[in-house]
Amino acid sequence: METTNRARIAELQKLLRKTGLDSLLVTSPSDRYYLTGFTGEAGVLLVEPRGLTLVTDGRFAVQAHQEARRLPVVLQSDGLYRTCGLVEGLRARKDGDELARMRKSAILASEVVESSIKLLKSGVSELEVAAEIEYQMRRRGASGPAFETIVAFGERAALPHARPTAKRLKKGELVVLDLGAILENYCSDLTRTVFFGKAPAKIRLWYGAVREAQAAAVACVAAGRTCGEVDAAARTVLAAHRLDQYFVHSTGHGLGLQVHEDPRLAKGQKTQLASGNVVTIEPGVYVAGVGGIRIEDDVAVHPGGREVLTSASRDFIEL
Amino acid sequence: METTNRARIAELQKLLRKTGLDSLLVTSPSDRYYLTGFTGEAGVLLVEPRGLTLVTDGRFAVQAHQEARRLPVVLQSDGLYRTCGLVEGLRARKDGDELARMRKSAILASEVVESSIKLLKSGVSELEVAAEIEYQMRRRGASGPAFETIVAFGERAALPHARPTAKRLKKGELVVLDLGAILENYCSDLTRTVFFGKAPAKIRLWYGAVREAQAAAVACVAAGRTCGEVDAAARTVLAAHRLDQYFVHSTGHGLGLQVHEDPRLAKGQKTQLASGNVVTIEPGVYVAGVGGIRIEDDVAVHPGGREVLTSASRDFIEL
Repeated sequence: METTNRARIAELQKLLRKTGLDSLLVTSPSDRYYLTGFTGEAGVLLVEPRGLTLVTDGRFAVQAHQEARRLPVVLQSDGLYRTCGLVEGLRARKDGDELARMRKSAILASEVVESSIKLLKSGVSELEVAAEIEYQMRRRGASGPAFETIVAFGERAALPHARPTAKRLKKGELVVLDLGAILENYCSDLTRTVFFGKAPAKIRLWYGAVREAQAAAVACVAAGRTCGEVDAAARTVLAAHRLDQYFVHSTGHGLGLQVHEDPRLAKGQKTQLASGNVVTIEPGVYVAGVGGIRIEDDVAVHPGGREVLTSASRDFIEL
Repeated sequence: METTNRARIAELQKLLRKTGLDSLLVTSPSDRYYLTGFTGEAGVLLVEPRGLTLVTDGRFAVQAHQEARRLPVVLQSDGLYRTCGLVEGLRARKDGDELARMRKSAILASEVVESSIKLLKSGVSELEVAAEIEYQMRRRGASGPAFETIVAFGERAALPHARPTAKRLKKGELVVLDLGAILENYCSDLTRTVFFGKAPAKIRLWYGAVREAQAAAVACVAAGRTCGEVDAAARTVLAAHRLDQYFVHSTGHGLGLQVHEDPRLAKGQKTQLASGNVVTIEPGVYVAGVGGIRIEDDVAVHPGGREVLTSASRDFIEL
């Protein structure tokens, strides 16, 4: 560091002693540069009455040494590596109280999806159905939706994450409803697909394949199984129906205080499921120009078994 | 805290001891809730191998006590109050090295504004002039503009913070150029207003009034004067011309590593100027439907005097 930097730090330390502060964590890049001369993009400076430490990461180690010689530098990479996922790991295994809340949240979502299917009439818009779904959640005690509710009609159902629009429902269209509630701080996540009208044979076949794939993946959920095995269970069924190329996302994800948590159920994932995990199982097929079909449930892993928390019917519904 | 929270914290502390970490600062709201039950919007949790502290602010003190009984809580308000402005206060008084850099940055901006006035021709767009200004800064060694360059033609000059558009210059329009460079990490900030064509008498009168107001405020800059007095010096001159209602912002601001720093030169401000301060002096008048006129210079406060760092001519220019 330059003499001017040293003088500025000395003056600041004098102020700390005068005000009786133990330390000051300087997070402003301008303040950090002013005090040390270090111009790196990442880093915080810990100023103590008789101490000084720059915390930055490996990308800036050489630069910190060059720009601020004799400034003590701690690299956060080591600490970061060791802290990453520490609390997330604990959160992935739900205890009895958490499972009780998640059960209630899943049942609430199941009731709401069943009631919202009754709203599907010619001319209703995606936005109207989404608004009604979120209203029904709140009426049943949810603090709000766990994510922006998906309501997709017809060709729009081919978008796995369609945002509701002013599009109005007409005969002969698929309807995907993907919704979740936050109840007592815990999330649910549920998808059902129905057909508005009399479905063509191809749609019935696709629905049957997705339902079979979803059931196979649910049956695969058990402590000790890897996440990749659960994902493969769904994919194998769809491949037998020559539909695996239309399954464009992973099979599921952990669920809890947040809607996406560990573990992730994706291709090749070696992480083993453990009792206390709660995961979604949500395979789907998406065909541009036609629509999409997805069935999603929330499943808890128990010692020696599993529990499907969501209860809405998975039968193919034609309205 | 509930028994479950205590158990989770104990497990996390065991992990900390195992990994040899001194402490973990939990910033995720979900993690914080999971570990303590506290649902407040603000707060971080410091977990140590044998310690636990929630840091939050006064708004959540009662809630933290209710939701997480016996959790040690530290309110940051006291610390915040004492740390606020500590480094900013030091930064407001520039030393010799900083003043040398600010002088260079101000001269660079002065050269650029003078060269950019030569670009003003019928049909040139605001965006073209802004692009050329920023290119000229870089060519002269600046690391970049200190803020998004303002180029405003005609009626658009009535917007003090106009962003450059595709609008093309035509005869009979005011042109406001407000630009600043970052040179060796220090900012300049400079505004000049010219007229494209032969100016009507009213515009000449207004320009004369703004120039007189700016000179009065610059002359008022001295160690010991309050920021409010400097602001009043500009306002008094404009009031004598019955133009004070068109001066819609404050007279200036501190300048240094950032383009807006302490002190602020606004109405009624009691802060006293001190030697080492560098401030902008930038009164203006803005008339909707007609345009605006602003003149801005950077001024350093010296013991027993002042130094205007920016050098571009303030004479009224008709092109």
